[in-house]
Amino acid sequence: MACDYIELANKGVQGLQPYQPGKPVEELERELGISNIVKLASNENPLGPSPKALAAIRNQMPELTRYPDGNAFRLKQAIADKLGVDTDQITLGNGSNDVLELIARSYLTAHSASMYSQHAFAVYPIVTQAIGAQHIAVPAVNWGHDLDAMAAAITDKTRVIFIANPNNPTGTWLSENAVRTFLDKVPERIIVVLDEAYTEYVDQAEFPDGIRLLSDYPNLVVTRTFSKAYGLAGLRIGYSVSHPQVADILNRIRQPFNANMLAQEAAIAALQDEDYLAKSIQVNADGMAYLEEEFKRMGLDYIPSVGNFISVDVGQPAGSVDDALLQEGVIVRPVAPYQMPNHLRVSIGTMEENQRFIAALEKVLATSGTENEQGE
Amino acid sequence: MACDYIELANKGVQGLQPYQPGKPVEELERELGISNIVKLASNENPLGPSPKALAAIRNQMPELTRYPDGNAFRLKQAIADKLGVDTDQITLGNGSNDVLELIARSYLTAHSASMYSQHAFAVYPIVTQAIGAQHIAVPAVNWGHDLDAMAAAITDKTRVIFIANPNNPTGTWLSENAVRTFLDKVPERIIVVLDEAYTEYVDQAEFPDGIRLLSDYPNLVVTRTFSKAYGLAGLRIGYSVSHPQVADILNRIRQPFNANMLAQEAAIAALQDEDYLAKSIQVNADGMAYLEEEFKRMGLDYIPSVGNFISVDVGQPAGSVDDALLQEGVIVRPVAPYQMPNHLRVSIGTMEENQRFIAALEKVLATSGTENEQGE
Repeated sequence: MACDYIELANKGVQGLQPYQPGKPVEELERELGISNIVKLASNENPLGPSPKALAAIRNQMPELTRYPDGNAFRLKQAIADKLGVDTDQITLGNGSNDVLELIARSYLTAHSASMYSQHAFAVYPIVTQAIGAQHIAVPAVNWGHDLDAMAAAITDKTRVIFIANPNNPTGTWLSENAVRTFLDKVPERIIVVLDEAYTEYVDQAEFPDGIRLLSDYPNLVVTRTFSKAYGLAGLRIGYSVSHPQVADILNRIRQPFNANMLAQEAAIAALQDEDYLAKSIQVNADGMAYLEEEFKRMGLDYIPSVGNFISVDVGQPAGSVDDALLQEGVIVRPVAPYQMPNHLRVSIGTMEENQRFIAALEKVLATSGTENEQGE
Repeated sequence: MACDYIELANKGVQGLQPYQPGKPVEELERELGISNIVKLASNENPLGPSPKALAAIRNQMPELTRYPDGNAFRLKQAIADKLGVDTDQITLGNGSNDVLELIARSYLTAHSASMYSQHAFAVYPIVTQAIGAQHIAVPAVNWGHDLDAMAAAITDKTRVIFIANPNNPTGTWLSENAVRTFLDKVPERIIVVLDEAYTEYVDQAEFPDGIRLLSDYPNLVVTRTFSKAYGLAGLRIGYSVSHPQVADILNRIRQPFNANMLAQEAAIAALQDEDYLAKSIQVNADGMAYLEEEFKRMGLDYIPSVGNFISVDVGQPAGSVDDALLQEGVIVRPVAPYQMPNHLRVSIGTMEENQRFIAALEKVLATSGTENEQGE
């Protein structure tokens, strides 16, 4: 062959290390020939979908030969009503990942840079790298964002800053006061993305509602998703709320039908299903309390988390522990790519799933000899 | 406000004129307060979805809290089996629009150019403009691609060429011989995209199967969609087949969960529903024959089409005819943005829908006085 089609591609794309998803249950079943697998690897809602969302999908299915409403009139209205914002502040995405990418493609070039925290969500460097821009990871403090250091690291090249609140995979969070203090220092020419994918799970009094900050900071973009507490990860639907000018730009560059028809309908229904949301939050709180208790009993350090997941230090390189858990039919997430080589991130499941995980973890750690370290 | 967030965006994005979708039925209902609307505006399958696809969706719905399989193991295998290709040649997209964008983002920069034909699909310039690359439209001949002129227009800056076969909105098509002659002239460093969104409808003996050309042209990327003959536009699923190196690059830059879970399942089922596909093709052929007959009777010129749509010359600027048709509850597509100001593109519907359209068109043209031109 005359040409190398890797070499012909843009340098930024060539350098991409794609996001590594949690192993699908089906894939593990194929590999190991086992069933009854517990997946606590992708911060998914363990309850199954909202019945109202399912009803909305069934109702819409006869229309699937039609394109979605490219302007998502009714979903935007539902979000606007819920949040008290205008529809022209909203940009819908094929998951909030899509919106994060749209922001990078709109406001970054090969000659500028984005910034985010060490241990922050892997999609921030990926969407930056894809366009060949620089990506600067600022060292974390106590596993969380060091906002003072981030403000100090701003340069003339900085165009986009990603802040995850709470952060995945650490579960750490920033107070409203901390976020405001940071935003006050950031020049308005820099877009600040406040990624609130897990906001519904947080009940800390000092935790900010990003939407309430928008009127004070025109450079702020708040992203949210239906993939977590709203239980619709499979359908891919998320959004941002921002200054209307930013939304105008993001809507120019998004694909005209990026939000599929069933996702739009299911999201409208999910927004109205307050019982499901409340139950999702309660199951998460119960599971989190249980896992914290068990980690303490087992003498394992963990990072206190306000999300629907918790990262636990297994006291050794976590890869072999992860492999052994897979053999037990339990899928969690090793987070070595996040510079957390000894941690496993565990999504909160149903209580039965949480217990399956703890039993498997105890068995695996006992076998690997780390039971001697219990109580350290 | 200190900053203008339009001005701060990348120039290419600022210059975007977003794709104008066909007006959704709901939107027209809201605007006019009417119902019983016929939509023949978006080249959708008029039959309603495949029952097998619907069953697959219902079966998968309980899993919607989970992320899709990011590698789409089973759908890729199903496509590979159907087409006789390897799974590592396949890139899935959130509709084939997504794949077209991935190609542009991978192989174009602000310093290079794409090329396509006059009257070709609007997404080609849009995905090019989004990254600030030049886009060169080569004048058409008889409404179709002038491949000789396109080959002659190649410069050092040309990196991607989009060929639609058949083309939307003209319905024109290129023979295998014409495509091969063209590909023989194109340097292998240039990616040639053969967009086969409507390929299932074509029954011309000389019409090429792009997949069969791949072994001879490593720079060829064939794109296909489930939005047309397979009847799944609402779910957003399409794909490309290419050299594995090109697929490797496209898979690096795509969003990890760009193909949603229900789309993957529905597409697998749709691929297997040969009855649905055959019926879709037959209804289209019957409707096309009917519309051609009626246009002839009415003395209206049209562009012979091998797609699931036909562009008809209404003998006057088509905007006012379109407005009048909307008042009659019939949505078709004005194609003035395609430099076809006197044409309306009409998607083939059910026979009842086609008849509604013809009746409305006759009424509207009679009112506008063009009945005098009949028989010209």
